Amino acid sequence: MSLYPSLEDMKVDQMAKAQVYQEGQQAAAIQAPPQYPTQPQAYPTQAPAYPTQAPAYPTQPQAAGAMPVAQFSLYPSLDDYMGLSLTPEEVRANMPQVLEPPPSQAVVARPAGTVVTAPITGNSVQGVVGLQRAEIKQGVRQLMCCKDGNGKIGLRVRHVNKGVFVAFVHKDSPAALAGLRFGDQILQINEEVVAGWDMEKTMKYLKKCPPDRIIFAVRDRPFERTITMQKDSSNHIGFVFKNGKITAIAKDTSAARNGVLIEHQLIEVNGQNVVGLKDKEIAEIIAAGGPTVTITIMPTYVYNHIVKNMADSLVKKMMDHSIPDL
Amino acid sequence: MSLYPSLEDMKVDQMAKAQVYQEGQQAAAIQAPPQYPTQPQAYPTQAPAYPTQAPAYPTQPQAAGAMPVAQFSLYPSLDDYMGLSLTPEEVRANMPQVLEPPPSQAVVARPAGTVVTAPITGNSVQGVVGLQRAEIKQGVRQLMCCKDGNGKIGLRVRHVNKGVFVAFVHKDSPAALAGLRFGDQILQINEEVVAGWDMEKTMKYLKKCPPDRIIFAVRDRPFERTITMQKDSSNHIGFVFKNGKITAIAKDTSAARNGVLIEHQLIEVNGQNVVGLKDKEIAEIIAAGGPTVTITIMPTYVYNHIVKNMADSLVKKMMDHSIPDL
Repeated sequence: MSLYPSLEDMKVDQMAKAQVYQEGQQAAAIQAPPQYPTQPQAYPTQAPAYPTQAPAYPTQPQAAGAMPVAQFSLYPSLDDYMGLSLTPEEVRANMPQVLEPPPSQAVVARPAGTVVTAPITGNSVQGVVGLQRAEIKQGVRQLMCCKDGNGKIGLRVRHVNKGVFVAFVHKDSPAALAGLRFGDQILQINEEVVAGWDMEKTMKYLKKCPPDRIIFAVRDRPFERTITMQKDSSNHIGFVFKNGKITAIAKDTSAARNGVLIEHQLIEVNGQNVVGLKDKEIAEIIAAGGPTVTITIMPTYVYNHIVKNMADSLVKKMMDHSIPDL
Repeated sequence: MSLYPSLEDMKVDQMAKAQVYQEGQQAAAIQAPPQYPTQPQAYPTQAPAYPTQAPAYPTQPQAAGAMPVAQFSLYPSLDDYMGLSLTPEEVRANMPQVLEPPPSQAVVARPAGTVVTAPITGNSVQGVVGLQRAEIKQGVRQLMCCKDGNGKIGLRVRHVNKGVFVAFVHKDSPAALAGLRFGDQILQINEEVVAGWDMEKTMKYLKKCPPDRIIFAVRDRPFERTITMQKDSSNHIGFVFKNGKITAIAKDTSAARNGVLIEHQLIEVNGQNVVGLKDKEIAEIIAAGGPTVTITIMPTYVYNHIVKNMADSLVKKMMDHSIPDL
């Protein structure tokens, strides 16, 4: 089954496939009489058989890599443009720079190791990197941490529904360097299961931990999820937020198409934490993020519970807003 | 960075690696004097360098495949058992079936294409299949559906925070066959963006759709997440539920270790929907699920909102509880 990071990626891929399919049909019709006249020509009507045809997107680098070529052929050729006589020969005579045959290798070539996800998002390196930085990894991992010169880790936690969650990561602190993020669920500290512990008990236990060796078992941001969107021609993605909370979705925008919900808090933009930032600063980070933006959101009621009792000034001034390494 | 489906998987893998590492150290010590006497022997103290050493678990089939061999060596050999003289020769003479040298190929060999996830979960085919069935796929996908003889799809929806969510899937209906699941977010129906629509408007629109061609763009269960657990020797995983809602976590259990939260609703067990089932029936499905169990949960406040206004009897009798295909 094909999976796409955003709805726009899905549409472009389907249009390109339909075009390729139709071209194939036409070529076949010229070479031989159609053998299955009852077979529909347009691609989407084949959808029942579709899931078995297309592999899931991460395993499909060749198809996504070949995309830009197929995308070009979605537009009518210059010859047809408003009845003008613009044959390749005439254009070449007058504007030689336009019709230089594109080096077909170069269009497809990508540096080895680059993850090609899908047409639109995949065309922007920034978009792919943002998607990877924001990715919530299903499963449990281990982190190691130490204390700084003042015996601090730079971490605050909060208990939610008998679980312990990261509520604050001090910038440049051992916790930030170890890779703890706002919203991570802490499962164990130095082999001690923390289920059912409250904030106070956890902080007390952390104080008693040896300064050179604190090992966390962590589940990646369970209350959060990511949504990838494509900016439109006026650089909008289409939602309104106030104090980091999404309050409205604009019609006919990427946010609406991709299912952004209100009553959710913006936690990250392209994997970079934005908790405690001013709305203006968040908007600047979104604007600087290129044509593809991946946001990480959390239901507001959980967010409010996690940041409850924390001084606003602390979060605003000291929260870790670094861009995560890959 | 190593990622494990459950905390138990992480522990076993670490123990096995520590053992292999220590054996390597001992072998090296016999062959040559240790060149780095300041290097700690136990594995976990190397943790700062650890993330760069171990690849993420899905790309690590060879290491996980070799696991069973390493696991055997975690136990003391029979010779040491309570001082008894149980040399391999004596055992072989009296119990020839015990000490047959294990065909080292066979232990590691797995059919090609099998996904090996991690030591414990990976040892149970049932566990791996359950994990795969339950997996929530990040991204957008397309489904095609038609109406049945009565003009029904077998679907009910509910609006949450300006999004439209699947609230009910009738068993054996077109919606069930197309692969719609409870909790899926519907983004588009026949190219129409549904953001901001309420239940009534969506159902009305579905009624007007042509009976042979309804195309959904869907985001996979955004409010849900999965947790994988290992049963203990008495077949418990360690949480209490009432009417499908998790109400308590038992101490020193897999549920506590893996961070199961209260105030969450059980939606699936090993990928099979359990919404509307009696607690006894859910317990039976968990019991039948083998040593590894993957549950899919959703915060109770969202669940209550989605199933609000739906007749209990409908959900209990008609909900799709089929086991999803892979």
